[in-house]
Amino acid sequence: MPTVDVALGERAYSIHIGRGLLADPAYWPARLSGRLVAVVSNETVAPLYLHRVQKSLLAVGAKPFAVVLPDGEAHKNWQTLNRIFDALLERHCERGSTLIALGGGVIGDMGGFAAACYQRGMAFIQTPTTLLAQVDSSVGGKTAINHPLGKNMIGAFHQPSLVLVDIATLSTLPQRELSAGMAEVIKYGLIRDMDFLCWLEDNMQRLMARDETLLTEAVYRACRHKAEIVVADEREQGARALLNLGHTFGHAIETGLGYGVWLHGEAVAAGMLMAARLSAQMGWLSAADISRVERLLIAAALPVRAPDLGAERYLELMRHDKKVHNGRLRLILLSALGNAVISEAASAAEIAEAIREQTDATR
Amino acid sequence: MPTVDVALGERAYSIHIGRGLLADPAYWPARLSGRLVAVVSNETVAPLYLHRVQKSLLAVGAKPFAVVLPDGEAHKNWQTLNRIFDALLERHCERGSTLIALGGGVIGDMGGFAAACYQRGMAFIQTPTTLLAQVDSSVGGKTAINHPLGKNMIGAFHQPSLVLVDIATLSTLPQRELSAGMAEVIKYGLIRDMDFLCWLEDNMQRLMARDETLLTEAVYRACRHKAEIVVADEREQGARALLNLGHTFGHAIETGLGYGVWLHGEAVAAGMLMAARLSAQMGWLSAADISRVERLLIAAALPVRAPDLGAERYLELMRHDKKVHNGRLRLILLSALGNAVISEAASAAEIAEAIREQTDATR
Repeated sequence: MPTVDVALGERAYSIHIGRGLLADPAYWPARLSGRLVAVVSNETVAPLYLHRVQKSLLAVGAKPFAVVLPDGEAHKNWQTLNRIFDALLERHCERGSTLIALGGGVIGDMGGFAAACYQRGMAFIQTPTTLLAQVDSSVGGKTAINHPLGKNMIGAFHQPSLVLVDIATLSTLPQRELSAGMAEVIKYGLIRDMDFLCWLEDNMQRLMARDETLLTEAVYRACRHKAEIVVADEREQGARALLNLGHTFGHAIETGLGYGVWLHGEAVAAGMLMAARLSAQMGWLSAADISRVERLLIAAALPVRAPDLGAERYLELMRHDKKVHNGRLRLILLSALGNAVISEAASAAEIAEAIREQTDATR
Repeated sequence: MPTVDVALGERAYSIHIGRGLLADPAYWPARLSGRLVAVVSNETVAPLYLHRVQKSLLAVGAKPFAVVLPDGEAHKNWQTLNRIFDALLERHCERGSTLIALGGGVIGDMGGFAAACYQRGMAFIQTPTTLLAQVDSSVGGKTAINHPLGKNMIGAFHQPSLVLVDIATLSTLPQRELSAGMAEVIKYGLIRDMDFLCWLEDNMQRLMARDETLLTEAVYRACRHKAEIVVADEREQGARALLNLGHTFGHAIETGLGYGVWLHGEAVAAGMLMAARLSAQMGWLSAADISRVERLLIAAALPVRAPDLGAERYLELMRHDKKVHNGRLRLILLSALGNAVISEAASAAEIAEAIREQTDATR
């Protein structure tokens, strides 16, 4: 069973990755015995996987109960969070109780934030059921809800005590969400692992066909990267920023089109290609490099051309997303394939050019 | 200028105690220069002290703005918290911005929790203006809001980066609140400092007459105790429980009468005497010890007789307040004046007897 250890001292924890973990009591900690366990899930995931989680919990002697929330980013707000608090209080949960987040990124972010705040902090287990959550949001302790004036504005750093990644849950994931998660997997190759990038090029077809052995390997390698970066920079004050390759461009796409039109991973895919294009303008990547990135994203059924919002609108949205230093945007670029850097080298004109080259209208 | 250093490693901070700190730019950190600073206060405190804080902040080059909330525990909820988030977002505050809590315990708890959650954590300065907040809630990093089903149920441990205790603010504190704060000051003497207890006996009259030199000394010694306890047990897993002397009895009084009828410090005063009475039953304190505690509380104009809710009702409320271990209540008792212990030694019958001896009906 592939395991990644997140070496955060007294907040250290393990990520177990494999097939059938949710249904196998062997993977559920014995310390849950006798404890109240809130399983927080949503109306889409609960009918598929709640039963096996509850059965495993009963098998280790825990006292589980379910909190099933409506599905979707629109519900990642205080009102829904409060439904979790209501349930925890009605069941008389204490600091020694445990909260399990069973679902994708929204459930993980919201469940984790509830666990961070309930009685100033209760134990928390992530059981991510989407590829995106498995390789990104379930690892690293970032939790949050949205505020009407900004996404993820209210939250906490609260590390889980355990992450169980059951690859079997990917069998029910819509194809478009599999692709969106794959964008973040490819990102790890682009920012810090040329060998992994080559492996993804060799295996993308079988990954997209949901070969579970290969998916296990891909998730394992992605989680190992995420864990290394988080350990180096738990509170996102430095190196963790490299994880944002393509994200400043991507956020502009998401905001410009209205949230939910493109999935986050889709916007990141097009955004990574914009960042690659800009890196080529800086003289750091070749035309052949750009083509490789493009081919890999296409193999993962991801969009490579961005919507034409107009370069000025992109820049405006990007300036709003990121702090501007001395009038220059601080972006994550690629000094080579497999090596990301934080850079303020590009001028607004150069950024605009990269955007224009990568948007539909320029085709 | 008396200063207490709270030695929490990378979360270490200083508590400065003196007269006129709020109005003196010398005590405001230079690192605030150029930064957005949200001063969170309430409708009672803002007209008295907001102006001098803003003036000092402008003097060090900060960019302050005020968030003035309604006064009172009834407003320590999500709706009011959200008004802080709205203001922070409207002003485009970032993680590098600072939030200052200017007020008593409610403002400190709520402002601290807002700072803990905003963009997953922003810097936070406590400027407590009540004696209770100065010696208790502003030190130690406990922040929270209330939930309809329980007080302080939703919160975070979030240490301030600085605490500025301006003794001059006590000049406007209502007498009843001065007494309530003094209950917590006396508590430090009772649980761990016989010398301080004697000092308080010698000086209570002048303290209650608001001698600022003596108040500075009392707050300094109280904060030093709180800091030592917090450093030993930041997350309240052990020794920090000793700070709850009188609190389990006191919470029963507060809940039994309905919140707000007695001030927290008043309930704690009567509760500490119940705990002392029970400690005497255990053979740990003498009748003379009890009288000393009683006299000191009376000198601070605090109630020593508790309301007659009936001993059974007290026990019911206390069992609800505290986890029961093997059928016995875990209480903070005094093995001697100046030395508190965590004890399950008392039976329900013994606790009931102590309650009866200390309630009005038995007079």
